[in-house]
Amino acid sequence: MSTPACTCTDIHNHIVPENFPAYAGRNLNVPWPSMAEAHACHRHVMISGKVYRTVADGSWSVARRISDMDTAGVTRQALSPMPELLSYWLPLDDAKVMVRFLNDQIASMIDQAPGRFVGLGCVPLQDVEAAIREMEYVMGTLKFQGVEIASHVNGVSIGDPRFEPFFAAAVKMNAAIFVHALRPAGQDRIVGAFSEQAVAFPGDIGLAVASMITGGIAERVPGLKIAFSHGGGAFAMMMPRLVRGWNAVPKAKESLPKSPREYARKFYYDCLVFDPQAVKHLIYSFGASQLMIGSDYPFNMGDTDPVGSLKAAGLDDETFVAIMQKNAERFLGLPPQ
Amino acid sequence: MSTPACTCTDIHNHIVPENFPAYAGRNLNVPWPSMAEAHACHRHVMISGKVYRTVADGSWSVARRISDMDTAGVTRQALSPMPELLSYWLPLDDAKVMVRFLNDQIASMIDQAPGRFVGLGCVPLQDVEAAIREMEYVMGTLKFQGVEIASHVNGVSIGDPRFEPFFAAAVKMNAAIFVHALRPAGQDRIVGAFSEQAVAFPGDIGLAVASMITGGIAERVPGLKIAFSHGGGAFAMMMPRLVRGWNAVPKAKESLPKSPREYARKFYYDCLVFDPQAVKHLIYSFGASQLMIGSDYPFNMGDTDPVGSLKAAGLDDETFVAIMQKNAERFLGLPPQ
Repeated sequence: MSTPACTCTDIHNHIVPENFPAYAGRNLNVPWPSMAEAHACHRHVMISGKVYRTVADGSWSVARRISDMDTAGVTRQALSPMPELLSYWLPLDDAKVMVRFLNDQIASMIDQAPGRFVGLGCVPLQDVEAAIREMEYVMGTLKFQGVEIASHVNGVSIGDPRFEPFFAAAVKMNAAIFVHALRPAGQDRIVGAFSEQAVAFPGDIGLAVASMITGGIAERVPGLKIAFSHGGGAFAMMMPRLVRGWNAVPKAKESLPKSPREYARKFYYDCLVFDPQAVKHLIYSFGASQLMIGSDYPFNMGDTDPVGSLKAAGLDDETFVAIMQKNAERFLGLPPQ
Repeated sequence: MSTPACTCTDIHNHIVPENFPAYAGRNLNVPWPSMAEAHACHRHVMISGKVYRTVADGSWSVARRISDMDTAGVTRQALSPMPELLSYWLPLDDAKVMVRFLNDQIASMIDQAPGRFVGLGCVPLQDVEAAIREMEYVMGTLKFQGVEIASHVNGVSIGDPRFEPFFAAAVKMNAAIFVHALRPAGQDRIVGAFSEQAVAFPGDIGLAVASMITGGIAERVPGLKIAFSHGGGAFAMMMPRLVRGWNAVPKAKESLPKSPREYARKFYYDCLVFDPQAVKHLIYSFGASQLMIGSDYPFNMGDTDPVGSLKAAGLDDETFVAIMQKNAERFLGLPPQ
């Protein structure tokens, strides 16, 4: 099968700065990150005196990143921070400093290759008003396409009504929202040598998708452009059960005018599911118009060949081009290439 | 398409007794259940002074149950307790009384129609030795086919090494283990009017499947017959990611000699996923030889037409008969019909 001509936009990949500024706040025992040398081309992200993760230089090096993108056939990346940097658990004054630093780092990387990168910034969502103000900076001053948020904020699902003003503001600013798993539900139930990223991210992001539906924000904020990491995780398997719950339980049905499936099929999802048949199940579940390329570059749970993985699903040309390019243009609010 | 001739064994359905004995233990503030009258043909399960759930008389009435089974085309049910009765959180002496009472209730229902029912009993898994002794009673005296356990025991996943002697004993007794979601991980992340059963069961049972693989029990107890409720929940979407984690992370790979997929394809799963295409994704993921009918009878999140739901998947005759009958015979250790 020949591959149709199109560009490729990767909406799920992360940056880590080469260095963090020293902590300059006034609070005690803040888990402020720093960087330390590791082996060649790698650095350790240090948090509270421990190695949180060892990351490759593609995390911060634009030259390395573009070289790797060229190898993988990725035209453009929407850059977002490593989720553990989102800082929802920091005191607000410290979190504001960190997210501003990260947003400016992303802007600096975009400036070095504006044809290859767009921005998905970060906001201190532990304070909805402060988050809206940072989103204004990100969208207005830095001209990003949107922001990355986590599946929950310190244990409160993003579908909680307290976050509704944030999502309403995102619609007004035409900001795309990319939701990523973080500190997942069930991480205390993992047994053995597998990481929380490997075991518990799918269930966690599935709960975030569900919360945006069951809590009613998807109904009340209809213009929202929101995408979920890791193919929506467990949600493809959860959705028919939510529909059953909606049909079977009167108080659930009274709470939502439409079936959960209808809301879910307006959300976006990446295709980072490591199985061509699972990609096809996402298309069946959510629709070919709602899926996009996600690589998790440059982390070791990522897909180094996201284009090849999509090709392996054996899709028709129109579907392939939609997932490679057109859906991401629509999600990110970019002019068609 | 004509339907091939076969029987149907439903491995996922529950009993609730019409009454519980009054609490006769010596502990204080024990959440011992009781029953109270509700509307016609229904009773309230009361726990700690609140209605835990209102259940229909099919929960205890053999006549009602058989009538409903005949309507649905179910030949045989493997009866297991409503999971909230598993009593892992009760003091051990109280839990022993409760599980013995439930096991004898199931035995009494089987005695009323031995051609229509087999038993999956319960054990006090908060104490592994006591659980093994109750499993001996259930298998030796009551002649059940196995036991139902939950996805975790008071927050500890069933794949934790502390439970390995229990699973090894199950192999020796040829006991089938049916794992059901209960008090799910992420239930604190639900927003809105949907229940924990609707939203959080899939992620919860997925974590239980993962724990049996990543903790190594599936490797070390190879003859185990174990089945997971709700189609394994999220696990069909989690499995490719676990495989990726196994391939990408050295300490994960060193911990397991085989790919997570190989263990997962020796487990059994019911087909209670409310979507014919999801059933097909289970067949792709786990194999047609590992799936069985599950209805969740008589609860309102159940499937009142599990045979029709399987037919809707449009399977070939051999696959249909395997899922309706033969896989359950193998899982439960029953002679072929």
